[in-house]
Amino acid sequence: MSPKVVAVAGATGAVGTEMLRVLECRRFPVKRLVALASARSVGKSVRFAGEEVPVAELRQDSFRGVELALFSAGAARSREFAPAAVASGAVVVDNSSAFRMDPEVPLVVPEVNPEAVRTHKGIIANPNCTTIIMNVPVWPIHKAARVRRIIVSSYQATSGAGAKAMVELRRQLVELLSRPEYSEAALLEGMGLRNDAPHVAKGLAREVFPHQIAFNLFPHIGGFYPEGDLEEERKLVKETHKIFGDSSIRIFGTTVRVPVFRAHSESVYLETERPVQPEEARRILSGAPGVELMDDPSKNLYPMPIHATGRAEVLVGRIRSDPSTPNVLAMFVAGDQLLKGAALNAVQIAELL
Amino acid sequence: MSPKVVAVAGATGAVGTEMLRVLECRRFPVKRLVALASARSVGKSVRFAGEEVPVAELRQDSFRGVELALFSAGAARSREFAPAAVASGAVVVDNSSAFRMDPEVPLVVPEVNPEAVRTHKGIIANPNCTTIIMNVPVWPIHKAARVRRIIVSSYQATSGAGAKAMVELRRQLVELLSRPEYSEAALLEGMGLRNDAPHVAKGLAREVFPHQIAFNLFPHIGGFYPEGDLEEERKLVKETHKIFGDSSIRIFGTTVRVPVFRAHSESVYLETERPVQPEEARRILSGAPGVELMDDPSKNLYPMPIHATGRAEVLVGRIRSDPSTPNVLAMFVAGDQLLKGAALNAVQIAELL
Repeated sequence: MSPKVVAVAGATGAVGTEMLRVLECRRFPVKRLVALASARSVGKSVRFAGEEVPVAELRQDSFRGVELALFSAGAARSREFAPAAVASGAVVVDNSSAFRMDPEVPLVVPEVNPEAVRTHKGIIANPNCTTIIMNVPVWPIHKAARVRRIIVSSYQATSGAGAKAMVELRRQLVELLSRPEYSEAALLEGMGLRNDAPHVAKGLAREVFPHQIAFNLFPHIGGFYPEGDLEEERKLVKETHKIFGDSSIRIFGTTVRVPVFRAHSESVYLETERPVQPEEARRILSGAPGVELMDDPSKNLYPMPIHATGRAEVLVGRIRSDPSTPNVLAMFVAGDQLLKGAALNAVQIAELL
Repeated sequence: MSPKVVAVAGATGAVGTEMLRVLECRRFPVKRLVALASARSVGKSVRFAGEEVPVAELRQDSFRGVELALFSAGAARSREFAPAAVASGAVVVDNSSAFRMDPEVPLVVPEVNPEAVRTHKGIIANPNCTTIIMNVPVWPIHKAARVRRIIVSSYQATSGAGAKAMVELRRQLVELLSRPEYSEAALLEGMGLRNDAPHVAKGLAREVFPHQIAFNLFPHIGGFYPEGDLEEERKLVKETHKIFGDSSIRIFGTTVRVPVFRAHSESVYLETERPVQPEEARRILSGAPGVELMDDPSKNLYPMPIHATGRAEVLVGRIRSDPSTPNVLAMFVAGDQLLKGAALNAVQIAELL
């Protein structure tokens, strides 16, 4: 591939920062980097390939000469600025939800449907992080035995809500750990029955999340639909249908934020058309692209966020049948949602072009 | 009820401490409290009803004059000492797994099968915490529409592994938050692709858990069976069958430890014989004993550990159908596993006697 002029829109965000790191790590041929962000980041710079690159404001005229534009600045900005990038001659890989369900726009996980990039008309969409992390290990099982149903519960890291969300978790922890009610003595004292919700910490600073995240978790990621499901949960259904090219798979998700900095985990329960025993599943998955099998309970080896952080692969373990029901395969997976769930997947799409 | 001589075996542990608090809060008629623990706790005292009660060593001869013995000192000690308590004339309510599956021993959740206590021969078993928290809200649905299948993934607090486990989480957090790689700047810097597992913290003190719990989670609670499932997961199946008196319900669980101090959460997916719409389920659950409905997404209201901590009720929310499959009811539940999941349930059993 000849070196390209590459723009990153949202270059100072959690995913944008990882896009820069991934372009470096994978030695993507960058002729010139254009770092774009909102007006309030102008004056900052980002580090890329040993140099400080000044951040410019993301505008309609930001894309002159740009050949590849990686967007991760939210759906509103993608809708506003991606068409301008395309009009300037760039190919856009968009990490937001803006174009994912557009029938004209390919939605691509390179391990699953790389051929879809060929049909692009200027924009290629990067799926939601939780979808990607589920799709990478489920696809090889689907190819082998046709997945008919997926029931998934997630354990999602704070950084999925952006850089500020990591800082929010950190600050809340520092604050709470300094309070007497979180001292070792207080934790050990017991509390009996109380109705004053003593562990809803009073006066805790909070900007990003709807509730305290330190020592807590909540089944709330993205907005709620009137039907009671979350945007994050519906993305799992619709995006997987589009990526797999099979909307007959029944999918139900419950998405939950947990007090972890990086890497999403998912408890995945599959029903397949043909039965797949755990041994066969391990064989299939140990050779599957983008997957690392980590499944040895005798050595306490299974996927965890601290193993997945910084890794390109989605980790898969706890592979089991369900003794009560035929044709079931359960697994526990973990993947770095800023990398394979976002920045890495986007750069892999760019590499396919 | 006339005042009783009550022994608490394991009085200095996380559950034992809550047993004392719950006996106080519910004004259980205690004539005299006997606080028992292992030899290394002798010399300590526990606070009960405004007095300091010295801790005595748990021995075969500890139960003279004891009428009610609440055990929470692990299965091995229950096996060793509960028969002596019974021989001394005490009724034992045992929080361990020692006798739960013994066909001679009732396994009781007072909201589900209170009548079972009548058949006791000296020992009544208290179910596993994760089982209780699931059973309380699922039972009213089972009564109304016959539950045929349960698929559950858990989010379990550290205190489920005992008092030391809470301290382990706290100390790891304090340590990691002081390290430069967990500074705000480091968190925001991005990391790119690495294979050195940078978030597996080096040199972190660990006694209780098989892995770092700070900023991490793992699908590992109790020991593994050769089949790949966990003790905690099999308890969910077998104990629910016994408590509900229905072993035809298909149950599959995945149990996961999360960095929360107190209260277990569970993502519960039910299939029922007769369809139950969410509105009907909310009606059933809002009047069900031991349940508090907390289900208003428009107000960001759903069960969370910080709401459940210190509460007697199991909180239930995120009640949904599955648009892809008939006869499904999904819910997210949270309950204080030291209280309703252990100490409170045990005291409620004692109150039934």
